[in-house]
Amino acid sequence: MKILIIGATGAIGKIVTPALAQKHEVITAGRNSGDIQVDISSADSIKAMFNLVKNIDACVCVAGDSHTGDLATLTEENLNLGIKNKLIGQANLVLIGQNYLNDNGSFTLTSGKMGDKPIKNAAGKAIVNGGINSFMMAASLEMPRGLRINVVSPSKISDIPVNDLIDGYLKSIENGTNGEIIKINY
Amino acid sequence: MKILIIGATGAIGKIVTPALAQKHEVITAGRNSGDIQVDISSADSIKAMFNLVKNIDACVCVAGDSHTGDLATLTEENLNLGIKNKLIGQANLVLIGQNYLNDNGSFTLTSGKMGDKPIKNAAGKAIVNGGINSFMMAASLEMPRGLRINVVSPSKISDIPVNDLIDGYLKSIENGTNGEIIKINY
Repeated sequence: MKILIIGATGAIGKIVTPALAQKHEVITAGRNSGDIQVDISSADSIKAMFNLVKNIDACVCVAGDSHTGDLATLTEENLNLGIKNKLIGQANLVLIGQNYLNDNGSFTLTSGKMGDKPIKNAAGKAIVNGGINSFMMAASLEMPRGLRINVVSPSKISDIPVNDLIDGYLKSIENGTNGEIIKINY
Repeated sequence: MKILIIGATGAIGKIVTPALAQKHEVITAGRNSGDIQVDISSADSIKAMFNLVKNIDACVCVAGDSHTGDLATLTEENLNLGIKNKLIGQANLVLIGQNYLNDNGSFTLTSGKMGDKPIKNAAGKAIVNGGINSFMMAASLEMPRGLRINVVSPSKISDIPVNDLIDGYLKSIENGTNGEIIKINY
């Protein structure tokens, strides 16, 4: 398969990218690094990326910042960091990418445990992760041309056995799964 | 109790407001109607509202638009209708209102079934409803001064027996519940 991975040098990308590259042709994208530069908070940047890279079978997104901090001092600006970047950014990747991916291709987005099992100081992450999970479930009902979509929802990355994280992304990419929140290390 | 209800003339508000008014002092707020004018997509407008209305025990939000439409033609602009209004708007109501509500007061937000049991053409609603649900779960862990927060998640309003809808909001306001997604007519 030809796999486009966005955020390849991030905490998840560093683990997953080399594992995918063992069996697949991997193209990396990132804000400041990778084969292609992309800022997923910009629809124009996403369009430019898909116009550059052709014949993608799997689009994997492990990029997207969000805010950690207590509720007492949380602001709209804090929320918008994650909403513009990780939430709308990943949704836009699907809305735009659905016109570009190869037939029967797949999207794998990333949310996180704070969306369904939050702890304190996580409201800025929860709002984003919950939105991604629900968007994916709805989108999975309407994907064109046999395309699939799933979300990997990991707990804290440093706590996860490396192979469990890799297996989560592989399940979405290789196993024909559609519409699933793949929970890792809950 | 003194209850502030935002969106009192909307589809849910029309049903719930008169029921709440039977037992409580109700202050209505809306974009173009009600005792107070408020646009929840504006943090400044929310602040102005809370500076005008004092000693609120329960803040109920049944306002907030979102987009219905198919995935093939869904745009970032469509998503932003709900995200700015129903998602960030309701979150801001809590972030700002947590400093104003009476001790042991409550917030009741509104999401919808499309957040966890979506059907086709609902990705623009799902992204918003999922975000609200998760934000509420995270926020419920950190509410100050005994404040509580819940979300009422109704199915299609016209399909719901009126009393079931009212009971959902009353459960959040009167029953000491915290951190619950109150699902109506799933």
